[in-house]
Amino acid sequence: MKSLLVELGERSYPIYIGSGLLHQDELWLKHIRSKQVVIVTNETIAPLYLESVADKLSGLQVETVILPDGEQFKTLEIMNRIFDVMLENRFSRNATLIALGGGVIGDIGGFAAACYQRGVPFIQIPTTLLAQVDSSVGGKTGVNHALGKNMIGAFYQPQCVLADTDVLETLEDRQLSAGIAEVIKYGLIRDKAFFGWLENNLDALLERDKQALSYAIERSCVNKAEVVAEDEKESGIRAILNLGHTFGHAIETGSGYGVYLHGEAVSIGTCQAADLSRRMGLIDDEAVDKIISIFQKARLPVLPPRELDSNRFIQLMSVDKKNVDGKIRLILLESIGSATLPTDVDQQLLEATLNEYGRN
Amino acid sequence: MKSLLVELGERSYPIYIGSGLLHQDELWLKHIRSKQVVIVTNETIAPLYLESVADKLSGLQVETVILPDGEQFKTLEIMNRIFDVMLENRFSRNATLIALGGGVIGDIGGFAAACYQRGVPFIQIPTTLLAQVDSSVGGKTGVNHALGKNMIGAFYQPQCVLADTDVLETLEDRQLSAGIAEVIKYGLIRDKAFFGWLENNLDALLERDKQALSYAIERSCVNKAEVVAEDEKESGIRAILNLGHTFGHAIETGSGYGVYLHGEAVSIGTCQAADLSRRMGLIDDEAVDKIISIFQKARLPVLPPRELDSNRFIQLMSVDKKNVDGKIRLILLESIGSATLPTDVDQQLLEATLNEYGRN
Repeated sequence: MKSLLVELGERSYPIYIGSGLLHQDELWLKHIRSKQVVIVTNETIAPLYLESVADKLSGLQVETVILPDGEQFKTLEIMNRIFDVMLENRFSRNATLIALGGGVIGDIGGFAAACYQRGVPFIQIPTTLLAQVDSSVGGKTGVNHALGKNMIGAFYQPQCVLADTDVLETLEDRQLSAGIAEVIKYGLIRDKAFFGWLENNLDALLERDKQALSYAIERSCVNKAEVVAEDEKESGIRAILNLGHTFGHAIETGSGYGVYLHGEAVSIGTCQAADLSRRMGLIDDEAVDKIISIFQKARLPVLPPRELDSNRFIQLMSVDKKNVDGKIRLILLESIGSATLPTDVDQQLLEATLNEYGRN
Repeated sequence: MKSLLVELGERSYPIYIGSGLLHQDELWLKHIRSKQVVIVTNETIAPLYLESVADKLSGLQVETVILPDGEQFKTLEIMNRIFDVMLENRFSRNATLIALGGGVIGDIGGFAAACYQRGVPFIQIPTTLLAQVDSSVGGKTGVNHALGKNMIGAFYQPQCVLADTDVLETLEDRQLSAGIAEVIKYGLIRDKAFFGWLENNLDALLERDKQALSYAIERSCVNKAEVVAEDEKESGIRAILNLGHTFGHAIETGSGYGVYLHGEAVSIGTCQAADLSRRMGLIDDEAVDKIISIFQKARLPVLPPRELDSNRFIQLMSVDKKNVDGKIRLILLESIGSATLPTDVDQQLLEATLNEYGRN
């Protein structure tokens, strides 16, 4: 078992990574300091893992909220169901919320924890690769709005994150690939050696080799924890974690939440960002080919949906959180292993990417 | 003009108190550091003060959200209207939100600012006495849930608070009295001298004497700022600001939001808390009489609504945020000028208060 610390002063917390952690009660029960616990999960995960988690909590008042599965349900209305259960059962401000599921459950559960009585402690038990390497680490919580993804939320840190590699055995292939998209991202933005390792070990990841998965999760979390420790609330460097995400969020919102998995949209968006980086003279053709090729090898889509034209893309991208005074800002690559946030993106080159990349 | 600082490290902010502040642009425009500003107000305040505020913001992109007036509209659904407007107009994470109105607007506007893109700066311009002395100071923001008042929210501090005493001229008598209820509270919980001043100057306040109002606002804000600086997130001493509020919230929720003004419910609740303090042997009959009498003199209700019996009261009070593991906790008085939060409230004496105080 590996234990990493996300260093955020009094809000620091550990990420535990390894096999069989769900059953290592002593590891995570020490983070629960109340008699009241609510487990937030979804219809897919509940039959698989709810019992093993709830079993560990005997003697406590345990309530369960089972939400429908999918990004389209990450809304204020659905979040209200969590509050209903907590209030019906008179949950206090010292109750603990456990988010047991993928990125959607972590985001909505974490935001509910941030807001319930202005904040209760919570624990993340991510059950997808994507959530283990990305969404459960760093305290970004929130819900979607019809006009933009993750537009309503809070920075709110968990008590601990429990990344049990065993739960990846039941993950659909499509979900596994979506998680690998975010893993590749860490290599691209700040870890060239890891990108090289990924090029050589992608088959092992796709075959769910435990050692390979464990290493990939650990490297991803180390990279993310370092960035988050430096800039918790994304006033600067943390934005590089959003490589491919501005394009990606536009694809998710524009196609209707739930059509593309988040990781799939990030895969396409990162290829678009690579294409734009090339047009802006930051990277060469060979680098772009390498990037597109590794995503393809991970069985991820790399082309934007035909129905989103450049006008629609720009409209959707103009509500992105990185924008300043309404101006679109994008994370680009200056090499494989190094991301940058230019203050100005050439509008014509952006349109060229939107009109030409993957449109032939 | 008086300027007080709420000392919260990097989240410190000034409260400006005085006459004509709305028109002293230089005072509050310096707290706006973006081109995008959204003013959140309500149907009552908009015709009175929206124009004077908007006029000062020429050259900026200014949008307005006019919400219906009343506690019953302080909900997640209504808050979503603010997000609609901000997203439709592509507001960035550096946009500023101005909450122009009473306690409801401050709470819902502040919470919207806390959540929009995980947090944008905001300015409070409270237009009721209650908001000037209480709800706009201290960073408590939030909305109601059908099962409990202020159950969903965030601790989120403004850039500044602008308490212009001129706006109190248009306040309804009932609203003025409701504000005085919170003013009296500060005397009761920690400022005996101020309570004495209030006993002697209540008529001046009711006649809207500017000097008296200014002094009452200042003493209230000084008291609140000191408590908040000591305990921003209410892990201890800050709870004393909630004297009368557990009873009061039960009255508001139990009667349906909007029937009682918040200050009216706090007036009744404080008299109930005084009655219970007496039953617990903390204060004597004379003190209780003094307390009931000052609220009556301020033209406030002091008796609980007949339709709420003790069972319903206890049911409603058991979702209060101060409760620990489902146990009711209450702020009581150990003298006029000193509040206490006992770890145990005698259940039988609480029922006696609920069954007997004001029930004959």
